[in-house]
Amino acid sequence: MNYMKDVAVVGVGKTRFGAFADRDLRSLAVESIENALSDAGIEPSAVNAFYLGNFAGPSFTGQSHLAPYIAGAADITGVPASRFEAACASSGAAFHAAWQAVAHGIYETVLVCGVEKMTSQPAARVAAILAMAGDVAVDGTFPEIFAAIARRHMELYGTTREHLAAVAVKNHAHGATNPFAHLRKVITLEQALASKVIAAPLTLYDCSLVSDGAAAVILSANKGQVKVLACAQTSDHVALRDKAEITHLPSIQRAAQQAYKMANLSANDIHFAELHDCFTIAEILAVEELGFCRKGEGGPWSQAQPIPINRSGGLKSKGHPVGATGVAQIADVTLQLRGQATGWQLENVDIGLAQNLGGSGATSVVTILGKRN
Amino acid sequence: MNYMKDVAVVGVGKTRFGAFADRDLRSLAVESIENALSDAGIEPSAVNAFYLGNFAGPSFTGQSHLAPYIAGAADITGVPASRFEAACASSGAAFHAAWQAVAHGIYETVLVCGVEKMTSQPAARVAAILAMAGDVAVDGTFPEIFAAIARRHMELYGTTREHLAAVAVKNHAHGATNPFAHLRKVITLEQALASKVIAAPLTLYDCSLVSDGAAAVILSANKGQVKVLACAQTSDHVALRDKAEITHLPSIQRAAQQAYKMANLSANDIHFAELHDCFTIAEILAVEELGFCRKGEGGPWSQAQPIPINRSGGLKSKGHPVGATGVAQIADVTLQLRGQATGWQLENVDIGLAQNLGGSGATSVVTILGKRN
Repeated sequence: MNYMKDVAVVGVGKTRFGAFADRDLRSLAVESIENALSDAGIEPSAVNAFYLGNFAGPSFTGQSHLAPYIAGAADITGVPASRFEAACASSGAAFHAAWQAVAHGIYETVLVCGVEKMTSQPAARVAAILAMAGDVAVDGTFPEIFAAIARRHMELYGTTREHLAAVAVKNHAHGATNPFAHLRKVITLEQALASKVIAAPLTLYDCSLVSDGAAAVILSANKGQVKVLACAQTSDHVALRDKAEITHLPSIQRAAQQAYKMANLSANDIHFAELHDCFTIAEILAVEELGFCRKGEGGPWSQAQPIPINRSGGLKSKGHPVGATGVAQIADVTLQLRGQATGWQLENVDIGLAQNLGGSGATSVVTILGKRN
Repeated sequence: MNYMKDVAVVGVGKTRFGAFADRDLRSLAVESIENALSDAGIEPSAVNAFYLGNFAGPSFTGQSHLAPYIAGAADITGVPASRFEAACASSGAAFHAAWQAVAHGIYETVLVCGVEKMTSQPAARVAAILAMAGDVAVDGTFPEIFAAIARRHMELYGTTREHLAAVAVKNHAHGATNPFAHLRKVITLEQALASKVIAAPLTLYDCSLVSDGAAAVILSANKGQVKVLACAQTSDHVALRDKAEITHLPSIQRAAQQAYKMANLSANDIHFAELHDCFTIAEILAVEELGFCRKGEGGPWSQAQPIPINRSGGLKSKGHPVGATGVAQIADVTLQLRGQATGWQLENVDIGLAQNLGGSGATSVVTILGKRN
C-alpha cells in the first residue's frame, strides 16, 4: 500500500427522509449537496469530482445519467461525475471510491451524494424494483429473503421473535428523537410482536421504510474535525442459494476485518455504530459479522445494547431511501462525532462505524470515522 | 499530481456484437471476462477490484446489482465490485476510475467490463430507455437531439447530407472487415442518402445499431505491451437546452485537452482513433472537439480521412451495446496496437485514441493508448 493521505469529512448535508409527494429526485439531491457545500464553506467550483450513489432512479423516476443530471443542477460541471449502483450499498460504494481517490492523492476535494425517490411508485412496483437487488431468477422478494435468514438464525441459535422486535422497538425509540427521521414514532414490544406478518417470522415492524431522501458529504485531504479512519468494500455472490450458510454474510465480516486492520482498531474500540437494518434480522447479523459479539449471539447482544446501535433511528425509523442510505450513515456518524446530533446526541463518543449492505450481502461497505484529537 | 505508475492493458476480451436471442446479459459479460483473463494469462483471484460499465441493465433485463451478479459468475468475489452508469459512457467512466486506481497505486490489477443486452426489448421500449440518457422532461429522443445538432451544424458550417452519409459509408466499409462487428455490410453513398428518414436530416444509416455485447480489459501496473498514456473524464449539463451552442460539446474538448496534456502529446500525434459515432454527426463533432480539424470542418475532414477513424466499424457498423462501447473502444485500440486486429489491421500505428460520449455530451471520456517501445 502506498502512502495515504488523511481524509476528513469536511461537509455534511441531508434532507429529511420521508414521503414527499411534492419533491423530485433531483431537488432532494441538490438540497443535500447545497447543505454540504454550505456546511463545508466551499463553492461548487472547489469540487474536483462528483460521486453519486443511486440504486434505481431510472426505474423509480424514469431518468438515467443521474450524476451529471444532478451535478449540473448544483453548478458542478467540467469534472468527472459518475453514478455508482450497488443496490442498497450504492452510496456506500460511491463513498468508498471517493475516499480512495482523496486518500491516494487523485483529488483534493470531492463530493459524494446519495439519493433515492421511491414513494411516487405503488407499493407492488416498489417491491418489484427492490427485488432487482437480488437475483431475480432465483431469489424472492427481500422480505422473503430475510425471513429465510431469520428462520435459519432462530433454528441454529435460538434467536426469538422478541429479539427481532427489540431491535425495532429500540430503533423507533431512537428515531423518534431525530428531526430528520421519516417515522418518528415510539412503538412497544407488544405492538411490534402483534403487527401484520409480512413474511414469517418478519412482521411489518421488522421491515425498514420506503422513503424519499438524500444525503451528501464532502471529503478533503485538508484537516477537518472528523477523519475517515478506514473504509473497505467487498463483494459476494448475489443469489442467496450461492451462500454456504445464509446466516453468515462473509462480505460484512471481510470488510470489517479490513477496516479494523486499516484503522489499527478492533471491534472493542468502536463507541457507536450506524448499521444496515433493512430488516431487524439484518442488524442482528451485522453485529455478529462486525465482531461486536460472537456468531449467534446477536439477538441477546442487541437486547442488552452495550454500545449504541442506530442512534439515528436506522433504516427502520429514520427511513431507507435506498441510494441515500450509505452516505446518510456516514453523515450521521459525523454529526455525532461533531456533537451536532441535536436531539439524539450521544455522550463521549470518539469513534463510530457505519455499515452499508447491498442485497443480502453481495456488496458490503464498512467505514470507521474518528474525532481528530 | 502525485507520482503515477505506468498502467498497461494486459488483457482484452470481447464477445461478438449482434442481436443474440439466445444470450443473456450475464453470459455475454462472463464470456468477455473469461477471454480477458485468458488473454492476460491470470486467474480470477488475481483481480483486486471489478469495475462494471452498464447503462440500463435493470430496464433492459430486470436485474440490478449487476457488478457482483456478474463478478460472482466469473469467480471474482471478496473484492470491491461496483457498477458505473454514465449513459453511453458507462464503461468509459468505469475504465477511467479503474485506470486511476492502478495509476495511483490503489490496486495492482483490475478488471473493467462493459456490457449491454438490448435486443430483447421491442424497438419503442429501447428508444424510451435510451431517451433516459437525456433529460426526459425537456429533451426528445436521441435521433431528435442529434438531428437538431446536425441541422445547426449544416446551417453554421455548410455541412451537407453527403458529409454525414460519407461517415456511414466509411464505417460500414470498415466494419465489414471486422469479424466481431454486428452489421458487416458495405453500403454505397446512394444507399445511405436514400435510406429512410428517422429525424431529418438523419436517415437510418446515420444511426448506430441496437446491439447485444460485452467487452473487458485488464489493467495492471506491471509491464505490458500497450500502455495507457492518458485518460480523462469530464461532465456537462444533461439537457440540450442548457448548452451554450449545441454544435459545441465542451466536455469532449476539455477531456481531450486534459488527455493530451497528460500524455504530452497533441492531436497531430494521434495515428488512429475509435470515436463515439452514435450518429454520423457525432463523429463529425468529435473530430472537431478532439482538435483533428478546426470547428466546422469536421464534414470535409471526415470525407478526406487523413487518419483512420473507427477502423473497427464504430458504433455504426460494429454495433453499440451501450454499456459495452467504452471498453470495446479501448479493447479495439489495444488490438490495433498489438497487431492483432485480424482483417482490419492498420499499418504502422503506435498511438491510438478512444473517445466515449454519454448522452449529448454530459459525460465524456478520452483515452490515449500507446505501444511500448
